[in-house]
Amino acid sequence: MTVLDQVLARIDSDLDKSLERLFAFLRIPSISTDPAHAGDCRAAAAHLAADLRSLGIAADLSETAGHPVVLGRGGDASARGVLFYGHYDVQPVDPLDLWESPPFEPRIKTLDDGRKVIVARGSSDDKGQVMTFVEACRAHVAVTGKLPLPVTMLIEGEEECGSKNLPDWIEQNRGAIAADLALVCDTSMWDTATPAITTALRGMVYEEIEITAANRDLHSGLYGGPARNPIRVLTTILGGVHGDDGRITIPGFYDGITDPPADVLAVWRGLDLTPETFLKPVGLSEPAGERGRSIVEQLFCRPTCDVNGIWGGYTGAGAKTVIPSKASAKVSFRLVPGQDPDAIRQAFRTFVRERLPADCSVRFEGHSGAPAVAVPWDLSQLAAARHALTEEWGRDALMIGSGGSIPVVADFKRLVGMDTLLIGFALDDDRIHSPNEKYDLRSFHKGIRSWARILNALAG
Amino acid sequence: MTVLDQVLARIDSDLDKSLERLFAFLRIPSISTDPAHAGDCRAAAAHLAADLRSLGIAADLSETAGHPVVLGRGGDASARGVLFYGHYDVQPVDPLDLWESPPFEPRIKTLDDGRKVIVARGSSDDKGQVMTFVEACRAHVAVTGKLPLPVTMLIEGEEECGSKNLPDWIEQNRGAIAADLALVCDTSMWDTATPAITTALRGMVYEEIEITAANRDLHSGLYGGPARNPIRVLTTILGGVHGDDGRITIPGFYDGITDPPADVLAVWRGLDLTPETFLKPVGLSEPAGERGRSIVEQLFCRPTCDVNGIWGGYTGAGAKTVIPSKASAKVSFRLVPGQDPDAIRQAFRTFVRERLPADCSVRFEGHSGAPAVAVPWDLSQLAAARHALTEEWGRDALMIGSGGSIPVVADFKRLVGMDTLLIGFALDDDRIHSPNEKYDLRSFHKGIRSWARILNALAG
Repeated sequence: MTVLDQVLARIDSDLDKSLERLFAFLRIPSISTDPAHAGDCRAAAAHLAADLRSLGIAADLSETAGHPVVLGRGGDASARGVLFYGHYDVQPVDPLDLWESPPFEPRIKTLDDGRKVIVARGSSDDKGQVMTFVEACRAHVAVTGKLPLPVTMLIEGEEECGSKNLPDWIEQNRGAIAADLALVCDTSMWDTATPAITTALRGMVYEEIEITAANRDLHSGLYGGPARNPIRVLTTILGGVHGDDGRITIPGFYDGITDPPADVLAVWRGLDLTPETFLKPVGLSEPAGERGRSIVEQLFCRPTCDVNGIWGGYTGAGAKTVIPSKASAKVSFRLVPGQDPDAIRQAFRTFVRERLPADCSVRFEGHSGAPAVAVPWDLSQLAAARHALTEEWGRDALMIGSGGSIPVVADFKRLVGMDTLLIGFALDDDRIHSPNEKYDLRSFHKGIRSWARILNALAG
Repeated sequence: MTVLDQVLARIDSDLDKSLERLFAFLRIPSISTDPAHAGDCRAAAAHLAADLRSLGIAADLSETAGHPVVLGRGGDASARGVLFYGHYDVQPVDPLDLWESPPFEPRIKTLDDGRKVIVARGSSDDKGQVMTFVEACRAHVAVTGKLPLPVTMLIEGEEECGSKNLPDWIEQNRGAIAADLALVCDTSMWDTATPAITTALRGMVYEEIEITAANRDLHSGLYGGPARNPIRVLTTILGGVHGDDGRITIPGFYDGITDPPADVLAVWRGLDLTPETFLKPVGLSEPAGERGRSIVEQLFCRPTCDVNGIWGGYTGAGAKTVIPSKASAKVSFRLVPGQDPDAIRQAFRTFVRERLPADCSVRFEGHSGAPAVAVPWDLSQLAAARHALTEEWGRDALMIGSGGSIPVVADFKRLVGMDTLLIGFALDDDRIHSPNEKYDLRSFHKGIRSWARILNALAG
């Protein structure tokens, strides 16, 4: 029996305890975007650091202007090894009434198709995924007494609210986190049977805008007609961001974008990403993005604009005849390689300002911004990791793009010069950011086994 | 000293007690649109009925499917007399943090220009106005022992949420409320010095719409592009309701509308209703309605569409990368004579449905609807009332239009065949429906005196 076999056996026999440890982590409501949960975020960080120390990883909280970072280092101090990144914070839980069980009381549920899933906010994004790596390390330590290669842990607490303070922190801690390679566990499998390594990530720009017209709310009868309605201004401007062809009309928005190489596109086009497989499960049938682009292109290599939230005027029960003073929206852009987040942000602000009618003012609040990332296809460790995944899952690991943004990957490249392998075990039906978020028990179990194999392979 | 002089003197000497009675009424938070305040609405109705009984008006609560109506009758049972209409319910108070003092703790405040005002939710709309009539009756009773003419009181409790149950109630109580003339006190003076009788009122259609796309909230990275965003659908449709010329683009919307007679328009155009006088006080400068129409036309005789509320997606603090399943809006139309509320409602629904893209469904909820009203310029009692107002204020009472809707006036005409005189003492800066609603002490005091004179003239 090889050491790896012993480690895998240990993972199998320790699964119940691994689950108990995950549940303890999930019970902490570390919602980072809500100031009321700041204490819970710190508690989650402290909980994780203590767990890492039990593996011989010297871990502690490292302060930022926001929630703390968990920073740890284990293994041979003379080698560089790998950096593992994840996040301990989670999304808000609203609308709470759509949850079938309390979001911070994790439980195992058996789906109609027999799959066992872990239901809780953060079960998939990202506490469950973080724990696949931690438990893999634990199994190696249990069997061999040590980590197979040096591991630096960087688990942040602001990923779900834009990682505002992380770039500064990385810049100040370059030496502490420098490694041969970064590993991130915050992405999905291709499907329930097929592992994947994500090699392309969209970037993001997130803006909040508030339009003000009159200096107070007005009665829509006494003022309706002559009075400027900021909701009308907002809907008119936002309604003009997309053309009938689904393309974004902001001048310069597509500047600098090039299509991926033909062979990459060919692989992607061969993927089973169709209206039937991708849209039907969420109740949709027609791709709503740029006309003439496939779903896989719309997701992996084309930028988007979405209004993530809008509000203004009376939103309670019944009818109120008001022309409000203000109207607001949260608007985000997913970016692809070639787009500069700052330039896109400015182009959007200019677009809004140029369409602002008389008597209106606009206030912008910039939330997160990060460029897109493309991982080199010839990265030396990519083949090793792919082989390890293929061994575990009995099926070729795909190299894919992802529509989501993980800004830290761009920061690792820009600030530390590190490339990143994005390997995750989430599934498209995990309902991340939605009520009843879940993580398949199989994702958790085979995720741990996958990391055990990858660590073994990277240790060479 | 005539009887009228004695009544007016009594009003002057009793003013402090009149104020105390108004304050007691204002302290009841009778927000009709909010089910949590149903008990307060009933309490306000009971309070008012008890007060009316103290004047010898046989008053009691009359049930509806919603909040009760206060119905009372005083004076000679063999004559018809007048019907007085008002409402005891008030608007919601949000945003509460903009109130300088608690909305249901009335107080007298002295403005910088020396005016004393009564600050409270409902002080102007409509409890303060209702009490001007009640106190005028009280003074007549105090001086002469009886009302100068038969008075029927109809004070409803659902005006601020669309008077949904009132048409049925009126139909069932035609006999009880039939009078020679209806009097309504829910309108404004022309300015602080000039009384006015409103002879034209816009109607209203109020719709709530909810657009649904996916069957759950989606992550804007993992689905952004192919996934239909209902906020984008909503903003695109609502953003298309108005053309660049400020006209409403819904087919058939302007059908049946005619301009008022030339002499009426000439009087209106002579009114001092300019950007400087009308818009500047609320922080605006340019009329935002139909291009080529004056402010007075945009208000008195042109229809409008306003979005009164909009909501969807994440509206809390920070950034959430969600594509919501649903987006909603409250949309209302102010109508002018010639427009049929049901036809406008259907035209709007058709407009929305025709613009709905694939994979979206829409749910409409119809709130209130009422046609516009025009009071006959040659109504016999109009001259008497106008004369009484002119005597009190020392300035000619104007006959004007109003942009607001008072659906009950149309019902009085349609169901009971009564014409209505709309006489009120509110001012344009009363902030009705907004935080810090107020009613000038002078409006209250001279309002009572005005009604005392009008009752005397109509009894003539």
